[in-house]
Amino acid sequence: SKASQVHGTISGPVVMIGLGSIGKGTLPLIERHFNFDKSRFTVIDPVDTDAKLVTDRGYRFEKVALTPENYKDVLTPLLTEGEGQGFVVNLSVDTSSLELMKLCRKLGVLYIDTVIEPWPGFYFDDKASAADRTNYALRETVRREKKRKPGGTTAVSCCGANPGMVSWFVKQALVDIATDTGVKFKEPKSRKDWARLMKKAGVKGIHIAERDTQLAKEPKPAGEFWNTWSVEGFLSEGFQPAELGWGTHEKWKPANARQQKKGCKAAIYLEQPGANTRVRTWCPTPGAQYGFLVTHNEAISIADYFTVDDGKKVTYRPTCHYAYHPANVAVLSLHELFGSAGKVQDKLHVLEENELQDGTDELGVLLYGHKKNAYWYGSQLSVAEARKLAPYQNATGLQVTSAVIAGMVWALENPEAGIVETDEMDYRRCLEIQRPYLGPVKGIYTDWTPLEGRPGFYKEDIDTRDPWQFRNILVR
Amino acid sequence: SKASQVHGTISGPVVMIGLGSIGKGTLPLIERHFNFDKSRFTVIDPVDTDAKLVTDRGYRFEKVALTPENYKDVLTPLLTEGEGQGFVVNLSVDTSSLELMKLCRKLGVLYIDTVIEPWPGFYFDDKASAADRTNYALRETVRREKKRKPGGTTAVSCCGANPGMVSWFVKQALVDIATDTGVKFKEPKSRKDWARLMKKAGVKGIHIAERDTQLAKEPKPAGEFWNTWSVEGFLSEGFQPAELGWGTHEKWKPANARQQKKGCKAAIYLEQPGANTRVRTWCPTPGAQYGFLVTHNEAISIADYFTVDDGKKVTYRPTCHYAYHPANVAVLSLHELFGSAGKVQDKLHVLEENELQDGTDELGVLLYGHKKNAYWYGSQLSVAEARKLAPYQNATGLQVTSAVIAGMVWALENPEAGIVETDEMDYRRCLEIQRPYLGPVKGIYTDWTPLEGRPGFYKEDIDTRDPWQFRNILVR
Ligand SMILES: NC(=O)c1ccc[n+]([C@@H]2O[C@H](COP(=O)([O-])OP(=O)(O)OC[C@H]3O[C@@H](n4cnc5c(N)ncnc54)[C@H](O)[C@@H]3O)[C@@H](O)[C@H]2O)c1
Ligand SMILES: NC(=O)c1ccc[n+]([C@@H]2O[C@H](COP(=O)([O-])OP(=O)(O)OC[C@H]3O[C@@H](n4cnc5c(N)ncnc54)[C@H](O)[C@@H]3O)[C@@H](O)[C@H]2O)c1
Repeated sequence: SKASQVHGTISGPVVMIGLGSIGKGTLPLIERHFNFDKSRFTVIDPVDTDAKLVTDRGYRFEKVALTPENYKDVLTPLLTEGEGQGFVVNLSVDTSSLELMKLCRKLGVLYIDTVIEPWPGFYFDDKASAADRTNYALRETVRREKKRKPGGTTAVSCCGANPGMVSWFVKQALVDIATDTGVKFKEPKSRKDWARLMKKAGVKGIHIAERDTQLAKEPKPAGEFWNTWSVEGFLSEGFQPAELGWGTHEKWKPANARQQKKGCKAAIYLEQPGANTRVRTWCPTPGAQYGFLVTHNEAISIADYFTVDDGKKVTYRPTCHYAYHPANVAVLSLHELFGSAGKVQDKLHVLEENELQDGTDELGVLLYGHKKNAYWYGSQLSVAEARKLAPYQNATGLQVTSAVIAGMVWALENPEAGIVETDEMDYRRCLEIQRPYLGPVKGIYTDWTPLEGRPGFYKEDIDTRDPWQFRNILVR
Repeated sequence: SKASQVHGTISGPVVMIGLGSIGKGTLPLIERHFNFDKSRFTVIDPVDTDAKLVTDRGYRFEKVALTPENYKDVLTPLLTEGEGQGFVVNLSVDTSSLELMKLCRKLGVLYIDTVIEPWPGFYFDDKASAADRTNYALRETVRREKKRKPGGTTAVSCCGANPGMVSWFVKQALVDIATDTGVKFKEPKSRKDWARLMKKAGVKGIHIAERDTQLAKEPKPAGEFWNTWSVEGFLSEGFQPAELGWGTHEKWKPANARQQKKGCKAAIYLEQPGANTRVRTWCPTPGAQYGFLVTHNEAISIADYFTVDDGKKVTYRPTCHYAYHPANVAVLSLHELFGSAGKVQDKLHVLEENELQDGTDELGVLLYGHKKNAYWYGSQLSVAEARKLAPYQNATGLQVTSAVIAGMVWALENPEAGIVETDEMDYRRCLEIQRPYLGPVKGIYTDWTPLEGRPGFYKEDIDTRDPWQFRNILVR
């Protein structure tokens, strides 16, 4: 699959919601990889700063904020215009993914998003309990809809880089580990068999282990939050409780850990903001590093997907969480933000690729606790390579937008799959489409464990019998 | 006192030990402010990269590392050469301040340093207990010598910016607060009276509250530790236990807090490295911010100096500790360092003034818990102003080197004061000399307390009855 190949045809209208950093990057890739009717392509965003990007291409730009009151009225005429099956590509914030997805399925329109986004108010509702503000709660709303209305028109939930692509990496990594450690297996076809293979391979847990080494040319000024992707998106999830899929091997929990009462129960959360929760993790370039345990949909969906039960009780589940070292300017932004008890900076800024000197978004999955200790599998896309591959985006953006393209191709090829998470999609097909955009994709074994170099000068509360306990991973 | 004024004459030989970032900055200031015999001026350093700076001026440069074995042999001839009273200005690392001070006093030579430095091995001795590696232990060695040999030739201990200048700020701030809150008092003459005034003013504690906003022009590369002053010095103290003067108002201690068994008992330490210990603090420019509770001599000396006892037991003592927000590049360096379990980066780099874009070293004292809540008093020296005032240094450096000059003047004017800490010196005289180098020196009241904005979204273990408890200040 080459980066220039047309992968399919969208027979009906296309509506892209959100022309932010991800929307801008996705637009030229949709043009490159799909045939569609130019006269029925619409972009919706309440901010029209970049509207020219759309109108210059001959598409429609609608300057409107979708709300619970207007979304049906705004979208229905656009999606029912003319022949064929439409496609909604939702790359916005402050819209309800669930409601948009429901409307699309009712209209027989394909749908994709990169995160389960709620209407405004959810993330910073100080009357809501911590449990209510979790991604677990958001995911359960979509899972319930899937149960209520199984099958039907395909709606792909959470198909960006992470959540999204990393679920495909997990499967590839598991196949590699099983092969390299001599596990006898046939490539699984069902969720159950994938979960059993994970158990058989002895994987205790998974970090979504990311190091963004992209360096801004200018130093970050005081009072500004800088990031390589949506600052609003990062703030929302960063203030949510730290959240993780909770593995069956874990013997210890922090005192502020809480269980969920309803739903799949694959995850727990901590009563503290994820972006101020540090964990020990590992990526190929830096080696050992601190990451932030920011809540992400995939931490829950992956743990849930790879759960084995004997019909009555859970007999295996991997721990799974995000361990994110954002770009240095974002590390400083967080330090500043939490240093002022969470007062958000006056200016929020997403770095465009031309503001970046160099660096790589090293985004992968670290599967640990098996016979070969730990295995990182992921993409090492540099901003220099991203510039060559596609316009209007840095390395972080391209990992996301190319996953959207892969998800769209899969949806076109599987239009009646119902509501799906990326864990449930064909990882080989999706990675085949996405790979030209990922820079070097590598699998690397490491001897590192979270006990390396510990204890140093000071006593520590560690579990020396099992290096891969969360007790050893969480920085306290 | 003008920045160009000659303040005194050094009648004997001058030996400056250490030509690092502080040594280089001090050299031109010594030339500017003192008369001395050029032919008897020697600089000692094992590294001769900057020797030309010394020899071009017609002084001697001796390329040698002082060791326990050679220091007497190297220094004695230099210090006994010719007439008059000599002066040793010790600005080195890896030399024993105590031994150098003892030798000088034996020879009748004046002495000054900016820190109690030990011979190599002390800071990273993994066989030593945490208590043995504290600044408390280092300070006690000097206090014992002072007791054993009271009076005699003046040796000024720890006279940089902090430790040093900040002790003078504390007295000025106390006088301001007492005046502004209507306390009836006469300016104290003795230590006892100073302590009583601190008690009477109702001060609960003191942060040495520093924000270094100096921004490097280039982004910090991975694998390098960047700072605005000695990286080695910062690493040494940063790996030492977090340490603080322990106030009588404190009702709670962290579980890993330890008391000292011998000596003045004014301080406690935590079994964790100071540079990975965050506290909530406040400086005028950023407002609320995180600082690192890095151990410093002044945290102990100030708490000790302002202790009131009734002959039997301590009836009052302020809490006192450093709350340091270093330059952003150093924040990132620490994050990287502790993220790899304390593995020190391969390259250590001190930023010269020409590598800095702009910014200020905002260094002051925050006296809190009194009637007007909290008062910050300090220097807001920018790198732009530092450039104009003196060569070879950034803002951080100039705050240190000008304190050395002030301490030297005071020693020349008080040559038989014995071993002294800056708390015991004439703060008005010292600040008078130093002030031309400090940029704006300001006193600012603030409403901020460490409870501001808390609790946010999550329950916290806080003491709402007394905002100024260490329980509220320490980030956990
Ligand atoms: N899964 C992943 O890997 C991944 C990665 C990056 C971003 N994301 C998600 O993608 C989304 C977009 O990210 P981004 O970096 O482009 O964010 P962004 O903030 O740059 O863009 C969001 C856009 O949504 C628009 N918008 C706001 N309210 C709207 C409304 N009511 N109706 C329609 N549009 C509205 C904004 O004007 C903005 O242009 C976010 O939800 C983010 O969390 C996912
Ligand atoms: N009190 C304060 O405010 C303050 C502020 C900054 C620095 N300091 C202290 O001042 C000292 C110097 O700081 P810096 O930034 O110049 O550090 P630096 O690392 O730049 O310089 C130290 C110098 O000491 C020399 N040296 C090393 N071993 C020696 C030996 N055995 N004999 C003689 N010289 C030796 C080194 O070669 C180097 O040139 C440090 O101890 C530091 O902690 C105090």
